[in-house]
Amino acid sequence: MSAAEPFDAVDVIRTKRDRGRLNDAQIDWVVDAYTRGVVAEEQMSALTMAILLNGMERAEIARWTAAMIASGERMDFSALSRPTSDKHSTGGVGDKITLPLAPLVAVFGVAVPQLSGRGLGHTGGTLDKLESIPGWRAALSNDEMLAQLEDVGAVICQAGSGLAPADRKLYALRDVTGTVEAIPLIASSIMSKKIAEGTGALVLDVKVGSGAFMKDQAQATELARTMVELGTDAGVRTVALLTDMSTPLGLTAGNALEVRESVEVLAGGGPPDVVELTVVLAREMLEAAGVTGVDPADALRDGRAMDVWRRMIAAQGGDADAELPVAREREVVLAPADGVLVGLDALAVGVAAWRLGAGRARKEDPVQAGAGVELHAKPGALVRAGEPLMTLHTDTPDRIARAREALEGAVVVAPDGSAPATGPLVLDRIAAD
Amino acid sequence: MSAAEPFDAVDVIRTKRDRGRLNDAQIDWVVDAYTRGVVAEEQMSALTMAILLNGMERAEIARWTAAMIASGERMDFSALSRPTSDKHSTGGVGDKITLPLAPLVAVFGVAVPQLSGRGLGHTGGTLDKLESIPGWRAALSNDEMLAQLEDVGAVICQAGSGLAPADRKLYALRDVTGTVEAIPLIASSIMSKKIAEGTGALVLDVKVGSGAFMKDQAQATELARTMVELGTDAGVRTVALLTDMSTPLGLTAGNALEVRESVEVLAGGGPPDVVELTVVLAREMLEAAGVTGVDPADALRDGRAMDVWRRMIAAQGGDADAELPVAREREVVLAPADGVLVGLDALAVGVAAWRLGAGRARKEDPVQAGAGVELHAKPGALVRAGEPLMTLHTDTPDRIARAREALEGAVVVAPDGSAPATGPLVLDRIAAD
Repeated sequence: MSAAEPFDAVDVIRTKRDRGRLNDAQIDWVVDAYTRGVVAEEQMSALTMAILLNGMERAEIARWTAAMIASGERMDFSALSRPTSDKHSTGGVGDKITLPLAPLVAVFGVAVPQLSGRGLGHTGGTLDKLESIPGWRAALSNDEMLAQLEDVGAVICQAGSGLAPADRKLYALRDVTGTVEAIPLIASSIMSKKIAEGTGALVLDVKVGSGAFMKDQAQATELARTMVELGTDAGVRTVALLTDMSTPLGLTAGNALEVRESVEVLAGGGPPDVVELTVVLAREMLEAAGVTGVDPADALRDGRAMDVWRRMIAAQGGDADAELPVAREREVVLAPADGVLVGLDALAVGVAAWRLGAGRARKEDPVQAGAGVELHAKPGALVRAGEPLMTLHTDTPDRIARAREALEGAVVVAPDGSAPATGPLVLDRIAAD
Repeated sequence: MSAAEPFDAVDVIRTKRDRGRLNDAQIDWVVDAYTRGVVAEEQMSALTMAILLNGMERAEIARWTAAMIASGERMDFSALSRPTSDKHSTGGVGDKITLPLAPLVAVFGVAVPQLSGRGLGHTGGTLDKLESIPGWRAALSNDEMLAQLEDVGAVICQAGSGLAPADRKLYALRDVTGTVEAIPLIASSIMSKKIAEGTGALVLDVKVGSGAFMKDQAQATELARTMVELGTDAGVRTVALLTDMSTPLGLTAGNALEVRESVEVLAGGGPPDVVELTVVLAREMLEAAGVTGVDPADALRDGRAMDVWRRMIAAQGGDADAELPVAREREVVLAPADGVLVGLDALAVGVAAWRLGAGRARKEDPVQAGAGVELHAKPGALVRAGEPLMTLHTDTPDRIARAREALEGAVVVAPDGSAPATGPLVLDRIAAD
């Protein structure tokens, strides 16, 4: 500890270790001092493990989030002529909803500033998907982003490094120290960036199920409530939906595969679950921004959402008419029996897509644009033994065996009528008290 | 994680985080990989916080200790013509017992290989005390140590860096991450060095009270039991005494001050509590080494222990007849009232001695040989207001004000008969089941 520092990191760690409450000054200091490098990585990792095991109260989480925001710049959309509304998903398999959703909401005069990330592990990244469109670029300056929001109404781009740098440093640490799974830290990580981004309204899509980070609904509810409280306390109109992630969203998991499916939705078609979730989330985003009495589904049917999509892609250098990349090799997986498909595990499909080359194991790895899994049936469908159930796409066929391994036991076919029907897509809605 | 590593540190951390049991292979790997630098400091600190909060079972602690021993060399005393018996104290204020104890036990034909450390914070270090003797040197080679054990029978020297290097690295990490207070890690830290040192018998002096690391007897009992189990499982005849550290041992806290008091004990005098604990521990060390039917107190009275002391000091270059250093300044603290001294807080006296210059705040700080606190009364004594109660010794008189601050409230004088008498010095004895 330097003589100029008001606290000793060990005292702050001990407070949380002994189940105490960190006060505002301690939180402000420890986040700032960690960003400056005065609190060492090994000290912050001991603190985050103590937070994971002993928890934080609502006021502590709010202050922690504020301290993360204060570590960087804040964006300001107040000069825009339209209200802003953003969406964040906690990540799932086949979750391409941001692609049709951002242009759809923009149709109704609400600006969507969607700062996104790349994928790591079995859940894909929105930027990876869009980068399969020839010419499209993820990095925009703040001025470019503002101009596009004013002009097109929707932008999906890479989050700048200026927002909550403490979060970036802390996330990298949590990733290697087994402390990712701390709800106060997950909530403050997500919300610090969304609040610093300056959106007026925010809809959270908290995924629940095997393909999601949160496997059970109780934990997902706690995370959703914590984030809604953080947003509300910071003046952002925030609402959360809990949505099912036990099976993949739509019929594709992979980068170009998901762009193709998103374009189908924007053209008025596409898988019913993707359409449903896109419309439900659009309605929430519009309501949170004060726009009511409209039906977002109309704008998918009549081509207005597609128009915004084309302008949004073009504004970032992309060619919306270009052919999308296709993987060099395909392999068909067959249905194992006659009956109803009652289980198609999201995690297994996500891991298979990842292994085929759609995702990355390390931040610096490249992804294959064409790789992934294409489903030919979804739970609830009647299948016959030997019929194609899914197609695996990859540029590197030596990976197919490991993708098949991931899929072992993931497909469950039951005699017709013997198993429960599929459940609802939206499990719960959590708004401020 | 390198491809050659059998485990991922994050999986090991998660196991303990989720209250699981670490298996032998995980423990062996994580301790070894941490020593090699493959497991990073921030990963080990997350793991140690999880161990502190979630605990370890007996078998886990034993394996952890074995892994720490395996990180370095083991000493071997089997070539000696005598049995070996060692003592370890968890550290207290005025605890100079090692100084008279090692030569006293050696009188009876049992070799005492006392590998000691320097002080940090308010508890003094045995090597710091002996270094106040002109010429004495702490560092011996293993050969010098063995020769002195064979010839003199007792050695007090610096632990070589070859014993349990994992422990040294881990202790430095725990010190800055608020994870010192984990009983499994305290026990394995102490016992890994004692077992690697190769002693045949070991007596543990676990201190309880304000001046000790363990403030309450339940925790001290758990630590003692854990260490006795570890020693026993490793084939070392181990016994632990729980002894009182609510008030300083003897009448001095400081380096040369404590050497002077130790020499008084070796000359057949000295404060009754220091004599009592020295004799009790000597008897335990002798019994554990198979020597019974002797009274160690005899060897203090008849000069045999003093003879070994003189030979032990001389063998390490020290002049047992030299004048000991004296501090440049003294200040007397007066009794605040008439009555019986019922409280003289060990922690306060330890901190005062530390601030006067007897101890160090950082490992690299020097200590003052003459600094410390000399007591003129102990709990149970009748005192009169204005009488000298203690004398503060220092070379740096500007530190006296802060030493006096530490002593505020530490002295309690009650009307005669109104307060309980002092308790026993030895609170409990814990041996293998």
